[in-house]
Amino acid sequence: MNNKISEKVINRLTLYHCILSDYISKNIEVISSKQIAQLLHIDDSQVRKDINLLNNSGKSRVGYIVKELKSSIEKTLGFKKNKKAFIIGAGNLGSAIANYGNFTDYGLNILALFDNDPKKIGKIVNKMKIQEVSQLPLAAKDEEVDIAILTVPGKFAQSTADFLVKANIKYIWNFTPVVLSVPDDVQVWNENLMGNFLQFTYNI
Amino acid sequence: MNNKISEKVINRLTLYHCILSDYISKNIEVISSKQIAQLLHIDDSQVRKDINLLNNSGKSRVGYIVKELKSSIEKTLGFKKNKKAFIIGAGNLGSAIANYGNFTDYGLNILALFDNDPKKIGKIVNKMKIQEVSQLPLAAKDEEVDIAILTVPGKFAQSTADFLVKANIKYIWNFTPVVLSVPDDVQVWNENLMGNFLQFTYNI
Repeated sequence: MNNKISEKVINRLTLYHCILSDYISKNIEVISSKQIAQLLHIDDSQVRKDINLLNNSGKSRVGYIVKELKSSIEKTLGFKKNKKAFIIGAGNLGSAIANYGNFTDYGLNILALFDNDPKKIGKIVNKMKIQEVSQLPLAAKDEEVDIAILTVPGKFAQSTADFLVKANIKYIWNFTPVVLSVPDDVQVWNENLMGNFLQFTYNI
Repeated sequence: MNNKISEKVINRLTLYHCILSDYISKNIEVISSKQIAQLLHIDDSQVRKDINLLNNSGKSRVGYIVKELKSSIEKTLGFKKNKKAFIIGAGNLGSAIANYGNFTDYGLNILALFDNDPKKIGKIVNKMKIQEVSQLPLAAKDEEVDIAILTVPGKFAQSTADFLVKANIKYIWNFTPVVLSVPDDVQVWNENLMGNFLQFTYNI
């Protein structure tokens, strides 16, 4: 069943999950598809359709039971599969991601940051120590990490990617504005901020 | 014609644009659909199909003329429509975006950063002065800015959004992990990092 869920649905389910977390923090126990739909400015039939894709049993007469719906989303999207990752580039963007809310809740376990700037090595960002990048290959092997979050400046993106490939990294979440050239067995996920911006503003 | 281009195509065209910029910096004048396809690990028939959507005349016997293809993408996606924006929240994420490569090339003109932390006010990030957030409403009016890039911590996201709405901001590019509640005439673009990560890792 899982493989049938499209990227768009995954994206919406994650937004529902944010709303549900917020409801839980406010001690609200029930939510309707209409309430979710209004917050996201989408149609509530869409919300119901998405939720029908989950194995969700927490439906009451007045709406969905917040805690059960949240846990259904987590199960379906595999939040509990723990994925270990390193951040490469401890500048503003790398530090922002290291500090970013609740990645761990979503199964992303960032273990360390790496940089080549001696002034940064040893500093602590969100309880993680910034390490010298030459130590990455051994750390990746020891801790069985195959996901790298790439946040170096654009001009170092390709050479850093080459280095990561040699260190047996198999997935690169690429935040640089550069298209990376990697072997076929390595997957690059482009966090294409320009593309997103152009999508958003296309009809303004 | 423009309205027929889907979000996925826009996203791919932006990646082609990154590749073309790189080719130009290396003084390479011609590129084939196959070269683009290989870098992105997609099918070259897909690349040709996307490029056929553009008014691109720069085709030679051996491939596309890099400069002309780049300019066709820019025209079609409206890179030259200048869009003015403010960043709200001058922490790591806001500073990273302010410093991020080449937004101006894509028509995004970030005019200023705002924060409420007295220690940050007056500091310069990428030639822009960090201003006290209370000055935003007047600045938005004076400079006719209606796009805000929201990079405050999650717990201040909704109250800041309310403040932006009052200041007549009509588009919020939301980098916080919070679903914002806004009136119908305000558009929120959620930069849903968790959602993207879950999409990427769904099949790992």
